[in-house]
Amino acid sequence: MEVEPSLPEKTTNMSKWYDEVLARAELIDIRYGVKGFIVYRPYAMEIINNFLDMFKKELEDNGHRPALFPLVIPEKMLRKEARHIKGFEGQVFWVTHSGFNPLEEKLALRPTSETAIYPLYSLWIKSYKDLPFKLYQSVTVYRYETKATRPLLRGREFLWIETHDVFRDISGAERQIEEDVAIFNKVVKDSLGIPFLHLKREDYDKFAGADYSFAFDCLLPDGRVLQIGTTHYLGTNFAKAFEIKYQDEDESFKYAHQTCFGIGISRILAALILIHGDEFGLILPFDIAPIQIVIIPIPKKEYPDDKLRKYIDKVKEKLMENDYRVIVDYSEKSPGEKYYYYDMKGVPLRIEIGPREVNNNQITIFRRDLRKKYVISSDEIMETIEEFRKDIIKTLRARAVDGLNKSIVYAESLGEVLRYVDEGKPIIKVGFCGRKACADELKSETLGYETRGYSLMERENARYCVVCGQEADHITYLAKAY
Amino acid sequence: MEVEPSLPEKTTNMSKWYDEVLARAELIDIRYGVKGFIVYRPYAMEIINNFLDMFKKELEDNGHRPALFPLVIPEKMLRKEARHIKGFEGQVFWVTHSGFNPLEEKLALRPTSETAIYPLYSLWIKSYKDLPFKLYQSVTVYRYETKATRPLLRGREFLWIETHDVFRDISGAERQIEEDVAIFNKVVKDSLGIPFLHLKREDYDKFAGADYSFAFDCLLPDGRVLQIGTTHYLGTNFAKAFEIKYQDEDESFKYAHQTCFGIGISRILAALILIHGDEFGLILPFDIAPIQIVIIPIPKKEYPDDKLRKYIDKVKEKLMENDYRVIVDYSEKSPGEKYYYYDMKGVPLRIEIGPREVNNNQITIFRRDLRKKYVISSDEIMETIEEFRKDIIKTLRARAVDGLNKSIVYAESLGEVLRYVDEGKPIIKVGFCGRKACADELKSETLGYETRGYSLMERENARYCVVCGQEADHITYLAKAY
Repeated sequence: MEVEPSLPEKTTNMSKWYDEVLARAELIDIRYGVKGFIVYRPYAMEIINNFLDMFKKELEDNGHRPALFPLVIPEKMLRKEARHIKGFEGQVFWVTHSGFNPLEEKLALRPTSETAIYPLYSLWIKSYKDLPFKLYQSVTVYRYETKATRPLLRGREFLWIETHDVFRDISGAERQIEEDVAIFNKVVKDSLGIPFLHLKREDYDKFAGADYSFAFDCLLPDGRVLQIGTTHYLGTNFAKAFEIKYQDEDESFKYAHQTCFGIGISRILAALILIHGDEFGLILPFDIAPIQIVIIPIPKKEYPDDKLRKYIDKVKEKLMENDYRVIVDYSEKSPGEKYYYYDMKGVPLRIEIGPREVNNNQITIFRRDLRKKYVISSDEIMETIEEFRKDIIKTLRARAVDGLNKSIVYAESLGEVLRYVDEGKPIIKVGFCGRKACADELKSETLGYETRGYSLMERENARYCVVCGQEADHITYLAKAY
Repeated sequence: MEVEPSLPEKTTNMSKWYDEVLARAELIDIRYGVKGFIVYRPYAMEIINNFLDMFKKELEDNGHRPALFPLVIPEKMLRKEARHIKGFEGQVFWVTHSGFNPLEEKLALRPTSETAIYPLYSLWIKSYKDLPFKLYQSVTVYRYETKATRPLLRGREFLWIETHDVFRDISGAERQIEEDVAIFNKVVKDSLGIPFLHLKREDYDKFAGADYSFAFDCLLPDGRVLQIGTTHYLGTNFAKAFEIKYQDEDESFKYAHQTCFGIGISRILAALILIHGDEFGLILPFDIAPIQIVIIPIPKKEYPDDKLRKYIDKVKEKLMENDYRVIVDYSEKSPGEKYYYYDMKGVPLRIEIGPREVNNNQITIFRRDLRKKYVISSDEIMETIEEFRKDIIKTLRARAVDGLNKSIVYAESLGEVLRYVDEGKPIIKVGFCGRKACADELKSETLGYETRGYSLMERENARYCVVCGQEADHITYLAKAY
């Protein structure tokens, strides 16, 4: 069996690199035959399940409980909040028939679930004692994307978690938004090693029906940013549309304040693949890898096979006792072919065991992230693996953080913006007045850089808008986006 | 606050009992507004997640891996296997529009996923080395039920797990069917305490496209049976329709043999509620209870509150160290109101702690299943709880098994069948020729008893058909069904 060629270079040819990794690491199959709908193969689902569990745990520790609302939303419900329907109307899939007959009322496949969930909230929430009220659901959602679809990056069906939280007042809601950010940080940055910009979206870009929106944008190797999560303060907009009122301590009835938080599970998988991978394939953080350690036997003709197996079994057992996800590959492929295969799959640690290792009571251990081999005594296996486990995520995160930081520049003028665009700088910060007309001009001058919003912490530093020269409201981030 | 009245009697008024428990235990909300679509409230989702995890673990230990295929199935795919489409055509929801425009091809919401999954199998499976090939997905499915819908029992959207397995030959497939039964037994009977009949469905009742089907029927308190799972041998029917071929060791190409296994998650929740519950509400097996132990403080006016709290905290900590899901209810409701509430929720164990318990270094512990109180020394808490944990599921299962066994009678003649029907016997076994005409006559004579199929182990005992008098093929089970 021939060893296949390695992958194209990731930053210069991201699209091809990505398609090949999705196929060769057996993650996603794009041959389903309906545009924008993909098949999640087992390896992708196993990775997803591992980080989905992390999100669920954090959300539950934060007081959220799981729930499940119907996939279908009656048209009249979807229409209840005027700006909301305006934002989604063009991208909804409609169920219109059942069996051989038309339905009485057409039903939307959920593009997001505010209008499915909030009618029930108006029945459940009666008193200030019911608040805060926090639920999440982990589901697929459906949006008829008219732009070109890309697997996991932009699909018509995608996986996400959505939370829907209700509070007495704005202060409770805004505290929740901070907690949402903390949860996103903990899982996405700390555990998955994916850094992101946390930006307040420009007013004209906020979620349809929200008072304001924050979003999490990560940076892909091709220099474009990808929104992987959003958290919205809905004010009392939906509460008024759906009559979500509570009786306060003073016995008066008040509209509740709401937040919702969308975690883009499919897109986080895409980011994980694209940001950490290299020319040999995937690189997975240890904690979410379906296979954390693979043991490759290196048999030698003159060496007794049972002696090798016995040693390998001992190592494997020890690892399994510590709950590591470990496999031994005894298949007939050559060690080189096996290295190639598990490199592509992003298995974080590979242990090689041959006669030399057995005779010296050692193992050879290979770190996928550094592509470096270490020979260690078998007494040190456990502490070495624990050390590597922690160091792998640190290494991946540091690389990604470095990549993001180096990609951000600050421009004082439109001329400087255009120079940076020519140089291919992915993210350009500029003073900005906040008006859509200036954003449109920026987008057209830069051939596609969009205003992605601003960090509240940098607001003070804003001086004048690089387009109109008027006083700046804030410093906005410009980038091309998926 | 008034204590609400207890529930109606379960066996004589199951329907009302059920509706009240769904609402009062905060399991399901039926007010969504689209017929056959319900809302799973947090308490129901937590219970479901607990037993879903058990199924996933068993399936994965059995070699299945998770995957996710699209919700929508193009019409031409759904039509590929002739009998299959005939079986489902009348109950499919169709997506026909997106945004403001009609779709080029209409898309079915998955009523089951054979026709979504098998086109990919024909791409993935090439060689005998790829077999067996075993996947599962845990999803919602959609069927336009024309009969009256009932929450969890018969809905137009329901939760299930479906496995789709591929083998070289019939013997591999049939072994899998036995393993499916073992998995179902382990989770449903052993862990959830729900006994069932495991029946080979009559030929005219098999799954649309299968060679034969086995099904799992449990018995509800109103005397009707409920199909909570099915496992099918598909032969090479779908392999031929979807070109799932493998190259065998002898280099010839062969059609693969397939099985699929459907686990009715929504219906299993219904069975759990209905079979174990009593006039005080739910009764949950310890291992799947979202709250396994609730501690109720019994304060006394003259007794120092901090002393009580300190003792309670100590007990709670000890329980949490052992990973029990435990809460303390310090709310202002009276102990009686709290008892009532957690009884309704089916919390398996309640610990009451007042001055007497503190002073004697004891706890009072109440078993929901037996409605019995025990006073034990605080040294014995852990071993007592472990003992109760094991005994609760034994007790629930034994009750349910007893109920099922007592409900089955054997009739020698049609006259005897009718006498048993008059007596209200839920399940009647009879000799049966296997022909649909005789089944129809039985159904009409008994006003609704259907032939649910037969146990292979009893086949030998069959003599003559109670309807036509011809030689019996087997002993069939008659019952009214959901």
